[in-house]
Amino acid sequence: MSEKLIVIGGGAAGMPIASHVREKDQDMEITVFTKDRHVAYSPCGIPFVLSGEISSFEELVMHDVQYYKDKGIDVQTNTEVTAIDLGGKSIIAEGKQFDYDKLGIATGSLPLIPQIPGMDKKGVYSLRNLEDGKKVKEAMNNAEKAVIVGAGPIGLEVAAAFIKVGIDTTVVEMTPYVLPCVLDPDMASLVQSRLESLGVKVMTGFPLGSINGSDHVEFVTVGKEVVPADLVIMCTGTRPNTCLAKQAGIEVGETDGIKVDSAMRVTEDVYAAGDCVEVTNYITNRPCLSPLGSSAVRQAKVAAESICGGSAEFDPVLSPTVCLIGDLQVGSVGVTSHVAKQAGLIPVEGKAKGLTRARYYPDAKKIDVKLLFFEKRLIGAQIISEEGVKERIDALSLAIKSGMTVQQLLRAETCYAPPVSMVVDVLTLALEDVIDL
Amino acid sequence: MSEKLIVIGGGAAGMPIASHVREKDQDMEITVFTKDRHVAYSPCGIPFVLSGEISSFEELVMHDVQYYKDKGIDVQTNTEVTAIDLGGKSIIAEGKQFDYDKLGIATGSLPLIPQIPGMDKKGVYSLRNLEDGKKVKEAMNNAEKAVIVGAGPIGLEVAAAFIKVGIDTTVVEMTPYVLPCVLDPDMASLVQSRLESLGVKVMTGFPLGSINGSDHVEFVTVGKEVVPADLVIMCTGTRPNTCLAKQAGIEVGETDGIKVDSAMRVTEDVYAAGDCVEVTNYITNRPCLSPLGSSAVRQAKVAAESICGGSAEFDPVLSPTVCLIGDLQVGSVGVTSHVAKQAGLIPVEGKAKGLTRARYYPDAKKIDVKLLFFEKRLIGAQIISEEGVKERIDALSLAIKSGMTVQQLLRAETCYAPPVSMVVDVLTLALEDVIDL
Repeated sequence: MSEKLIVIGGGAAGMPIASHVREKDQDMEITVFTKDRHVAYSPCGIPFVLSGEISSFEELVMHDVQYYKDKGIDVQTNTEVTAIDLGGKSIIAEGKQFDYDKLGIATGSLPLIPQIPGMDKKGVYSLRNLEDGKKVKEAMNNAEKAVIVGAGPIGLEVAAAFIKVGIDTTVVEMTPYVLPCVLDPDMASLVQSRLESLGVKVMTGFPLGSINGSDHVEFVTVGKEVVPADLVIMCTGTRPNTCLAKQAGIEVGETDGIKVDSAMRVTEDVYAAGDCVEVTNYITNRPCLSPLGSSAVRQAKVAAESICGGSAEFDPVLSPTVCLIGDLQVGSVGVTSHVAKQAGLIPVEGKAKGLTRARYYPDAKKIDVKLLFFEKRLIGAQIISEEGVKERIDALSLAIKSGMTVQQLLRAETCYAPPVSMVVDVLTLALEDVIDL
Repeated sequence: MSEKLIVIGGGAAGMPIASHVREKDQDMEITVFTKDRHVAYSPCGIPFVLSGEISSFEELVMHDVQYYKDKGIDVQTNTEVTAIDLGGKSIIAEGKQFDYDKLGIATGSLPLIPQIPGMDKKGVYSLRNLEDGKKVKEAMNNAEKAVIVGAGPIGLEVAAAFIKVGIDTTVVEMTPYVLPCVLDPDMASLVQSRLESLGVKVMTGFPLGSINGSDHVEFVTVGKEVVPADLVIMCTGTRPNTCLAKQAGIEVGETDGIKVDSAMRVTEDVYAAGDCVEVTNYITNRPCLSPLGSSAVRQAKVAAESICGGSAEFDPVLSPTVCLIGDLQVGSVGVTSHVAKQAGLIPVEGKAKGLTRARYYPDAKKIDVKLLFFEKRLIGAQIISEEGVKERIDALSLAIKSGMTVQQLLRAETCYAPPVSMVVDVLTLALEDVIDL
């Protein structure tokens, strides 16, 4: 009789686990349970539906249930798993018991909503799945003044979307600068300036105090200020969705993510991947979360390999990220100065400003780079420009993992053509800035 | 008394030698001699002035003579150096003798013009410097049918420029496919298709036979075919300009480039950089040329460091390149399959097609990648897309130099956001294609 794999969760980790296992094992009986209506959609695309760049939420759905059925993967949508019995190797979904030989936990994350007075007012939304997205899109039709709480990548992408469609938009961030998890303050100020030039009001250094109004939100308070608002979007981050796992006795780490080994194994025959797991930071060697679609997909591949008896390993993470705020691409990899210092690594900084094309070429964009080194080795990078950010971040991600020193990086040749680069790349300029120190 | 540096050549190697020496040494007396009218201009930009992307040739001039004078660098334009006396440590320019303590040779390259009957007809041009560019631009005004000889990067950029302004354009390439020095045939066919879709006629596998006409060119012959033309541009490559060096007794290598050590030193107190020098191919370890602006600038920096008594080294080259043909960016680094096989390295290939943005994001561009491995290590890469080529080539250039294996490359995390990437980068897909072999 063929083995049974149950996957809990139909997102960026769950569906790839199922698909990769199917590719490797034609016999395994595979069932995916998700309480969501959709599977295999791209939550990262939600802000761009809000902005109108993408015409509908349906565009974000990559595959439907039939697609997986045709591959021999049974997907049960709108079906919540309510218990895992590790000893009995079964789960309970909608009151029924399903046995497994192998279990994949990919329960993702939940919005991390701070307890603020008035959170229950109408007009207050979080933004985690397509249904949330649809509600917000609907609410935008009648909104004149919005407050976005949280200046992380999603918050700022949403802010840019709101201002684009003509909604008066304020971003409230409790830390002293925007994108605090991915940028240093000096780089963050470039993003804040851009937001402000688009017309977004940015309030940093104060948490949201309260949400007020008779029934529907009318204004919020931030420090001593009152900000009128008929729409409030909580973009205050996420936390691993590990309730089910914890109830089953599965161990979570200090980040509240599920503990896994490098094979993404939780315990015998149980594997986990995606936003719900705790991973290790490559630079600091400390436990961390990496709630990124790209990380989920990589982890899923390793989990699938392990489920099929292979020997893949998931490395400690650098979590390279990029987001698009208006026309501005903001990328980051490795640690920020703040995280480095927290870990006792006092970084040496190299900074440079350059252009993405020859000075004389039309539409050359400014590009700002900051590199962080510790003991001559690259540990972090931040890049801001209207083009060429993602690929440079990927290059530096690779450079960090291969342990390259400043000198080795400087020896790497870069290519040149006037329409796509300066003769000396901005990364080289930033490296030369370090050399002088 | 301060030392005297003479630099011969005012291009992408000569001027940086002078500038970097000045940065390091405020006392050195620096004179640059060039037979050109301009210094410090970008010949790589010429095709884009022809296409009209850039409004005038003057835009390509980065700095004028006064700029250098203000830095204490004496630049003698329109001044040809006719002899070097290594023993006497002097040069002759315009009949006058100038003594040096250190000499920098940056004489660049000359067009490599094949001996073809009718080459002396009116309407036949090469394209090496700004003056050539101006003549061609002028000739384009009255041209209806052009033949571009040579399907290298410059030839194809010029072809794209010609077709853009409405000139009936044919490219003639004697090897069986376009861009033979930077692409494999399968990747070259993508470029040829694009050229043809733009309306360029591409004839490969036959050399230009003859150029014909009474006084002005009227037609050319290619194999048995007759191609009408009132304008012929010879883009048949370059050769090192080493006449002066050879006359002085300076040794050239098998490529006809000046032999230098890793400090860019020719002989005591004499240094060379740029298109005129012979370098070593990083993959094959054989002598080669690297006639790229980017290589010239890197070499100039090393030469300047050496002139000032430093200890910089110029590494064997991967010569990453990128060119823009219409909207298509074509990039390459390391060796092609052909060059690898010539060197006895039978490559393993990984290929992938992807998109530069999420499938559902507007204006996602196709991207084609080919990777070449030998004994599990990356030795070459070719990428074609309308965006994101240059930076990926730079990343792979870095990967080759750090000796990364397929497995190590697969472990490098890449970042993701729908407007700028797929969740799994096309490079990862190409690596996975190799893994299966």
